[in-house]
Amino acid sequence: MERVEKWDFIEIEVKCAQGLSFQNPFTQGQVTGTFRGEREEVRVSGFYDGGGCYKVRFMPAHEGRYAYVIEGNILREAITGEFEAVSPTRENNHGRVRVVVGCHLGYEDGTPYYSIGTTCYAWVHQSMELQEQTLETLKGSPFNKIRFCIFPKFYEFNKKEPLTYPFERGTGQGLDGTLAEQDRRQRKHFPGMEEPRWDFDFDYFRPNTAHFQRFDLRIRQLRDLGIEADIILMHPYDRWGMNLMQARCCDQYLRYMIARYGAYRNVWWSLANEYDLIGTKTGQDWERYGEIFYREDPYGHLRSIHNCMGFYDYSREWITHCSMQRQDFYKTTEYTDEYLEQYGKPVVWDEICYEGNIHFGWGNITGQELVRRFWEAFLRGGCAGHGETFLDEKEILWWSHGGILKGESPQRLRFLLKICQETPGGYLRKGPGLFDEVVGIGGEGESDGKASGSEPCGYEIHYLGITRPAYRMLYLPQDQEYQVEVIDTWGMTVEDAGVHSGTTRIELPARQYMAIRIRRVRGKCCGAPVRDADKK
Amino acid sequence: MERVEKWDFIEIEVKCAQGLSFQNPFTQGQVTGTFRGEREEVRVSGFYDGGGCYKVRFMPAHEGRYAYVIEGNILREAITGEFEAVSPTRENNHGRVRVVVGCHLGYEDGTPYYSIGTTCYAWVHQSMELQEQTLETLKGSPFNKIRFCIFPKFYEFNKKEPLTYPFERGTGQGLDGTLAEQDRRQRKHFPGMEEPRWDFDFDYFRPNTAHFQRFDLRIRQLRDLGIEADIILMHPYDRWGMNLMQARCCDQYLRYMIARYGAYRNVWWSLANEYDLIGTKTGQDWERYGEIFYREDPYGHLRSIHNCMGFYDYSREWITHCSMQRQDFYKTTEYTDEYLEQYGKPVVWDEICYEGNIHFGWGNITGQELVRRFWEAFLRGGCAGHGETFLDEKEILWWSHGGILKGESPQRLRFLLKICQETPGGYLRKGPGLFDEVVGIGGEGESDGKASGSEPCGYEIHYLGITRPAYRMLYLPQDQEYQVEVIDTWGMTVEDAGVHSGTTRIELPARQYMAIRIRRVRGKCCGAPVRDADKK
Repeated sequence: MERVEKWDFIEIEVKCAQGLSFQNPFTQGQVTGTFRGEREEVRVSGFYDGGGCYKVRFMPAHEGRYAYVIEGNILREAITGEFEAVSPTRENNHGRVRVVVGCHLGYEDGTPYYSIGTTCYAWVHQSMELQEQTLETLKGSPFNKIRFCIFPKFYEFNKKEPLTYPFERGTGQGLDGTLAEQDRRQRKHFPGMEEPRWDFDFDYFRPNTAHFQRFDLRIRQLRDLGIEADIILMHPYDRWGMNLMQARCCDQYLRYMIARYGAYRNVWWSLANEYDLIGTKTGQDWERYGEIFYREDPYGHLRSIHNCMGFYDYSREWITHCSMQRQDFYKTTEYTDEYLEQYGKPVVWDEICYEGNIHFGWGNITGQELVRRFWEAFLRGGCAGHGETFLDEKEILWWSHGGILKGESPQRLRFLLKICQETPGGYLRKGPGLFDEVVGIGGEGESDGKASGSEPCGYEIHYLGITRPAYRMLYLPQDQEYQVEVIDTWGMTVEDAGVHSGTTRIELPARQYMAIRIRRVRGKCCGAPVRDADKK
Repeated sequence: MERVEKWDFIEIEVKCAQGLSFQNPFTQGQVTGTFRGEREEVRVSGFYDGGGCYKVRFMPAHEGRYAYVIEGNILREAITGEFEAVSPTRENNHGRVRVVVGCHLGYEDGTPYYSIGTTCYAWVHQSMELQEQTLETLKGSPFNKIRFCIFPKFYEFNKKEPLTYPFERGTGQGLDGTLAEQDRRQRKHFPGMEEPRWDFDFDYFRPNTAHFQRFDLRIRQLRDLGIEADIILMHPYDRWGMNLMQARCCDQYLRYMIARYGAYRNVWWSLANEYDLIGTKTGQDWERYGEIFYREDPYGHLRSIHNCMGFYDYSREWITHCSMQRQDFYKTTEYTDEYLEQYGKPVVWDEICYEGNIHFGWGNITGQELVRRFWEAFLRGGCAGHGETFLDEKEILWWSHGGILKGESPQRLRFLLKICQETPGGYLRKGPGLFDEVVGIGGEGESDGKASGSEPCGYEIHYLGITRPAYRMLYLPQDQEYQVEVIDTWGMTVEDAGVHSGTTRIELPARQYMAIRIRRVRGKCCGAPVRDADKK
């Protein structure tokens, strides 16, 4: 009997029965699979993959025997079979990433997930050589999530045609010409970009299977590297009419995505990048799309939508987490704890400006500043995403094309990840910590609005950010002992500063980007409640 | 006939008439002067200066002959006299600093005033040697305003007794004991500071003339250096009962200040530092004090009050300008243009964190960050103040004690001052500038919330702050030519980048803290209105 690791997937290939044929096998042919195990029964849709061939994929969430039935109008009779889901053995197989209590993210097997994201919007649209290089780079990087677009991208530095188009060309079906004017009006946000030329005669009812097969390959490779694929389903950087599709084409496309990629455990659904720059979609459209994923994705993958100007209403039930772009140039992830409070959902900062040197304000901050924003996000209980925009003569910018990394931030983000992984109980969250509340350092103005993560009880990290004190006073309880460490978040070192009680002075190197970690080694709990999420 | 420079002052010393004596010459003896010139008639109060001697001071605001009459209950008959006010000859005599239209500050003689402040709260309470050193340092510095306290200061690093006390000791008059509890409650903001010891038996009805004579000397020396004296009349760092004075002592003290120091052209009145940390004063008290200065200062010196937690209501009629302490750790002077709009008064950032290395969050930012905050303030139409808190073995910190400067910011603030002084028309203000609005760079996300000052029309400075682009696109009008300069605000250089028209790319060094200045050298005005204040 076939054996499949739990959280990998089984794929059943089904040829259209002899004598049956459909004018459009994407829209007219249907196939579904019902998978029954001891602890779950799941019904999934299959998808057409070209050459008269349909595929049905299923990811088991439990170990043990499964029986399945494949049915549909492409078959004269159902196909049945069995397989066994076995315990995961691959290093990176921890199951899906889910929301865990307390607005954190965690893998299905209980491993905490600290999202160190990156962004390569159009990497799968580049040459195969460049794509392979990107994968190599990712392999050696700290990144465990990547955002990328299914549709090709048209934007500054992105004016070449993509490797493939997502739809077949020739017959010109499914375009809603009435949307062209709305699209044109929204283009004021992209000065310097030509008017779209609608000279591509796409048939939006026919996905180009070669295009989606390549994404299959990349999503699987990311999965095997332990990298979450934050799939961007729509975006405003369009020149081919992707945003002028008729509503039913669009819905069909989204359902195709669920049928095709839902069985990858590492998939996240991002309805759009900068949804509010897409002039052709209404609030009702976004809600309908959200509902499609909420109701029809059998795996309940993470779902969100990413803004440009103003946040989407993240309190909507179909949204699992905030996928945020900063709304202020100066203050970004410093708002993490406020948004955690406001939305009660994990806060994932997917765009907080990129390390780079281009002319755009969002693409020329230093590595120091980007890493600082990450620390602010994490110590306040959220997480963040990286991007890199260094311009070279080839105009290959990681942010969109992938390739190699040139910046100084990635190795520091690896260090941050390591520090996060050392958290007893799994997760940091913004105080009330011993440091600030119980012994009053906040009151004396030392921490002064800066992030400090704490895990009750007896473990705290205080990030000093842009400040650079030569020392810091700690007012620790007299009846407890704390091991104190000085962390250089940029230099990537952790130095033991001894065990302390009561009022004590900790010497610091008077450099920016330091943190102080304290860990109780003797004495009673400070009394802060331990939440379920922290016990895990 | 005696000759006095316009905006200097004449001082008439008056002995109490023979046979007259007062138990308390401060409260019981009165003397006033009435000064009549061709263009003004001013009545001023004199003040008791010890040894049976009263003084009447008058600062003429116009040239020409003045006649005066000195009267009061200390005299049996009036004293009359004449003097001539002559044209100013001293380098730094530009008259008082006033509010000019458009929320800017300017000297009475029409010279623009760009306030580059500093803070040495307790410098006049230190040893005479240290005070002399502070003056020497100021002489070589870019600072043209200094904030300091009349009352001694008790605070961390400030626990020595002052050189002199502002009131005589011995008889114990004028303390309102009922205020002690309010004072104690407010002290939670100063953990680690002892409870006040009320073992000083001050007579708050009797100013200590030795104390105030020393301030006379220092204010005059500052005046002659061209430095505005931003006199802080009250503050919360008290251990001697200054904040427990009876209301009538307090009012008497304030009137004494007007009579004594009002004739110095360089005086600004700051009712308090961190007024909201003084537990013994009510809103009504502050308003009464404000009214005293508003109604009774014959010279209309600048008046404000400085916050800790929340701003005072700067829209109050008696307030001439906002004297602000930042309310957010990360974002400070970036709010300048918003507050200019909100209050319609000059925005003076008197505390935006200090360059230093102490443990307090407000006292350990880098020189780069402090200078950045200054540029943000100035290019948005405001101004800002410096402070320095480097701890050494002697615990002499510029911020409070004066002494020498150790930081990297002062020379960069001199450079900023020089750039400000080059503004055609006198003043910069936040757009709408050609750069952002007319040719749409803002829309493309390049300026992205950063400060840019502009002077209509044809002169703009765009500050790039923490970003570090390797180039910047300018979209200039085709029919105009602009000289472009690249300013390194930290490196203190201005480099010519040539004359440009239309869309052009300016190379930049990919470092932080750069600015671009453009100046129209050919072509028509862009049509922006020229305000009176800018024409000046």
